[in-house]
Amino acid sequence: MTIMDVKALTFDVFGTVVDWRSSIIREGQALGKSKGFAVDWAKFADAWRGLYQPAMDEVRSGRRPWTKLDDLHRESLEKLLGQFAIKGLSDGEVDHLNRAWHRLDPWPDSVAGLTRLRKKYVLATLSNGNVALMVNMAKHGGLPWDAILGAEVARHYKPQPECYLTTASMLGLQPEECMMVAAHNGDLAAASSVGLRTAFVPRPAEHGTGQTRDVKPAREWDVVASDFVDLAARLGC
Amino acid sequence: MTIMDVKALTFDVFGTVVDWRSSIIREGQALGKSKGFAVDWAKFADAWRGLYQPAMDEVRSGRRPWTKLDDLHRESLEKLLGQFAIKGLSDGEVDHLNRAWHRLDPWPDSVAGLTRLRKKYVLATLSNGNVALMVNMAKHGGLPWDAILGAEVARHYKPQPECYLTTASMLGLQPEECMMVAAHNGDLAAASSVGLRTAFVPRPAEHGTGQTRDVKPAREWDVVASDFVDLAARLGC
Repeated sequence: MTIMDVKALTFDVFGTVVDWRSSIIREGQALGKSKGFAVDWAKFADAWRGLYQPAMDEVRSGRRPWTKLDDLHRESLEKLLGQFAIKGLSDGEVDHLNRAWHRLDPWPDSVAGLTRLRKKYVLATLSNGNVALMVNMAKHGGLPWDAILGAEVARHYKPQPECYLTTASMLGLQPEECMMVAAHNGDLAAASSVGLRTAFVPRPAEHGTGQTRDVKPAREWDVVASDFVDLAARLGC
Repeated sequence: MTIMDVKALTFDVFGTVVDWRSSIIREGQALGKSKGFAVDWAKFADAWRGLYQPAMDEVRSGRRPWTKLDDLHRESLEKLLGQFAIKGLSDGEVDHLNRAWHRLDPWPDSVAGLTRLRKKYVLATLSNGNVALMVNMAKHGGLPWDAILGAEVARHYKPQPECYLTTASMLGLQPEECMMVAAHNGDLAAASSVGLRTAFVPRPAEHGTGQTRDVKPAREWDVVASDFVDLAARLGC
């Protein structure tokens, strides 16, 4: 099979499709303004994301049973509220802040690129975000997915092979009929190792200014595109 | 909670959203014409659908492990090819006929109604059809789903409670925040028994002329609508 046989594009979402960092900072600033908190929200956003991989590692290792990302985010948030001395939020307010991940904004090219790609390909999420998070984010940002798949449906977090393979299987496709689209070389390496095709779309501002990781392709991925509109053009959409 | 708290509509699909019988007849007639088969395709469609519940019963009972609907359809089809003396099809042609279920046409009001409903609600499939079948059908008919959930994701066929409850859980909702939309009283009874709200939309031509089952609501469902456009109006969309 060649790249011409690809029938579905499977997407990493946090960082690749949406700008999580700016969105979390914006939500934090709005909360801080309404409540009178003086918090470095960029540090807060980075700290929250910093707890992401360790939290999933507990599940990946089997040390704890399947736990969806909303719940891992909430546990991390509770720790950070203490660290950043954010006090006096009601349970509903903490929940609203936790669900900031459901309201992340797309990168400026995401919707236009996806809309073009969707005419030719099945578009599915292959994210560690849970289904409700992805569905609400798609409503918020107008992301035109054909299917919400990935970690919660597979009950395995990336980069575990089951996450990629279950997604391909549920789409009724062989792994090589799916192309993983991600801004992270590690995600593409894991997808490639179980047979998926790969497209790298760098997001050099994902981590703010001065980002050094994932600014360039680490290997010769099947496609390298500058953004989603460029990806659509390269894939003939 | 009241009907005002409903956040997602979960849909039965075969018969409720799409007209499986006319679509299968049409696909059969096209095949028959190209191959010179003389087959009563209405009988063929009814016989294929007739094997649907017994095939799922094998899975529901635990007598066989989880098997997706595409595979059950294929096994039933192999039996019917013999019964209807349909000979000489290649494996690819049998597969194409089996995937007629991926190409079912929506009822005339389905897309217009769903498009209106989607502005207010999350719309998810809660069908016994597998994910690929539902994704391809949505592409074929332009069905604007927010999420493809149901039996394959839950690994339980309706009317087993897990099918409804896993769908609600993956949407991040309580059962009573979901409203099951179906043309089948039995489906609504099962959904209601585990807490979902209910909307009955009769499809009196699902089984062709002279249909007697499911032409009227068997109970006082939360909503009864004449079609999906009427459902949108009744739900204030």
